[in-house]
Amino acid sequence: MRKIKIGICGYGNIGKGVELAISQNPDMELVRIFTRRNTNDIIPVSRVPVIPYEDISRYSNAIDVMVVCGGSAKDLPEQSPFLAGHFNIVDSFDTHNKLMQHFSEIDKQALANEKVAIISTGWDPGDFSVQRVNMNSALPAGSTYTFWGPGVSQGHSDAIRQIEGVKDARQYTVPKDIALNCIRGGKTPVLTEREKYFRECYVVAEDGADQSAIENSIKTMEDYFADYDTKVFFISERDMKERHSKMPHGGFVYHIGTTGDGNKHIIEYKLQLDSNPEYTGSVMLSYARAAYRMNRNGEKGAKTVLDVSPAMRSIMTREELLKSGWI
Amino acid sequence: MRKIKIGICGYGNIGKGVELAISQNPDMELVRIFTRRNTNDIIPVSRVPVIPYEDISRYSNAIDVMVVCGGSAKDLPEQSPFLAGHFNIVDSFDTHNKLMQHFSEIDKQALANEKVAIISTGWDPGDFSVQRVNMNSALPAGSTYTFWGPGVSQGHSDAIRQIEGVKDARQYTVPKDIALNCIRGGKTPVLTEREKYFRECYVVAEDGADQSAIENSIKTMEDYFADYDTKVFFISERDMKERHSKMPHGGFVYHIGTTGDGNKHIIEYKLQLDSNPEYTGSVMLSYARAAYRMNRNGEKGAKTVLDVSPAMRSIMTREELLKSGWI
Repeated sequence: MRKIKIGICGYGNIGKGVELAISQNPDMELVRIFTRRNTNDIIPVSRVPVIPYEDISRYSNAIDVMVVCGGSAKDLPEQSPFLAGHFNIVDSFDTHNKLMQHFSEIDKQALANEKVAIISTGWDPGDFSVQRVNMNSALPAGSTYTFWGPGVSQGHSDAIRQIEGVKDARQYTVPKDIALNCIRGGKTPVLTEREKYFRECYVVAEDGADQSAIENSIKTMEDYFADYDTKVFFISERDMKERHSKMPHGGFVYHIGTTGDGNKHIIEYKLQLDSNPEYTGSVMLSYARAAYRMNRNGEKGAKTVLDVSPAMRSIMTREELLKSGWI
Repeated sequence: MRKIKIGICGYGNIGKGVELAISQNPDMELVRIFTRRNTNDIIPVSRVPVIPYEDISRYSNAIDVMVVCGGSAKDLPEQSPFLAGHFNIVDSFDTHNKLMQHFSEIDKQALANEKVAIISTGWDPGDFSVQRVNMNSALPAGSTYTFWGPGVSQGHSDAIRQIEGVKDARQYTVPKDIALNCIRGGKTPVLTEREKYFRECYVVAEDGADQSAIENSIKTMEDYFADYDTKVFFISERDMKERHSKMPHGGFVYHIGTTGDGNKHIIEYKLQLDSNPEYTGSVMLSYARAAYRMNRNGEKGAKTVLDVSPAMRSIMTREELLKSGWI
């Protein structure tokens, strides 16, 4: 069997997650990793060659799908459109209010180059997007709820690290059980962010720093913490390393719909992830398979996860799926 | 906006569920109901004309998608291939070991007639099939579990009704919490059917019937009850009517997968349905939309739910979905 040749662009947490997932997908092989860092500084687990980003377009014939693993703020708006001009790509773009712009810039490049670019893959956007749309198609008269967590929010952790006197910080977003159980019971409340989540902050302070000033700076931070029930815990550097070095995450999508004479139906989808980047990388790789197959079927242009059928993502053929017992 | 013209073939519980769902999907209209019963015996809620089944092929130009609502044992093997020769169709065929044969017979007809036929829609097969395949694509190294219930099993209820001295019966399949919680905790046990389910039987006995003989007949019935922890409750006819006339159902799909250095990820999908046929009908209708659109896009032949992208099922256009906030 000819394997699908994968490239990874960007070797951060998600890039490493994609690399680890390759070995679980026997129809794929990792060909190259691309980086803007000094290539000598990177020794990938898989030992594949590491190539400078500026040379990436030379590999357009050697790679079937480029998995673009940069950040949504700065990397992807620049890299994804450029790379869609040379490769089938998948990315995990998650800046919602810039989705249309990202989509249309990539669409132009991918159409011109006759490639498929699947954007915003991962779990949210990604799995959760698929669930929200499928739930609303199955039950058009209903209410949909998304909860993130319990899990680490990188953005909120970074925001705390900017505060004077903070050496390190980790922020967990934790859904409130009272809200989850209300919905599980079939109620459809209107919930504020404060009613949905706790924010738990674990902080390592500099020696001699004013802890109550730090706590106050966190709890009053606009856009990040001011509108939430925020708890701040000061811990040692050692505790941070030992207890908070993993990147767990997860969340819930609920849909409560009605049919006929008030019959109620509750759908729940729940993710509980030990490693956010490893799961994200693994999901991205399944969409890389879809990008490859859709392009071989003659499709081109920008796509979202909503344009991808389950069969396209599966390692099995359509006939194998019919015989699999999974239908 | 031109509405999608829907026909319903078969006016049992599922046909009625489809009819109720039409009003929640403003891009669709119900055109006709077809039945093999005496058309005078049927007064549909929606007041649409009821037409004898033998005249159905005359309506091939008037109907965009026929929703085939017969039973999997006798109706669908005959009706779905025939109807796929005249219409885009969806059905809810659920006899797993005959899936390939059903698929290929319909495929022939639908290809020859350039129609799309989406088979085995509903929730299992249907939603659960989509979940099982997506979960395995996201996490190839893992274990998948399906549980049905708590809910009424029509087949098992019918089996009890065949026993001498039984006037009426209702059987609930109930997943065992100990099994569910074991999996939710991230364990991947090998489970027998007995370890997964209780079977709860509510029975109305004929006057003077031997209840202990009935109970024994149920509990020892091969293929249905002998391999389960079965509980039998004798109740009055009135209790049967008041407490057991709804058709609730539901179930769970779990996937426990690992990535990297033993990181564990748990995915749970849960359905809790007040009315099995109404939910099934509503899901089928979303696939009817997909069948119509896929056919307009030039597709033809038999499809399963695995061949349908989320966007095809949604009432929204691709552009509306990009702007919806659901991605």
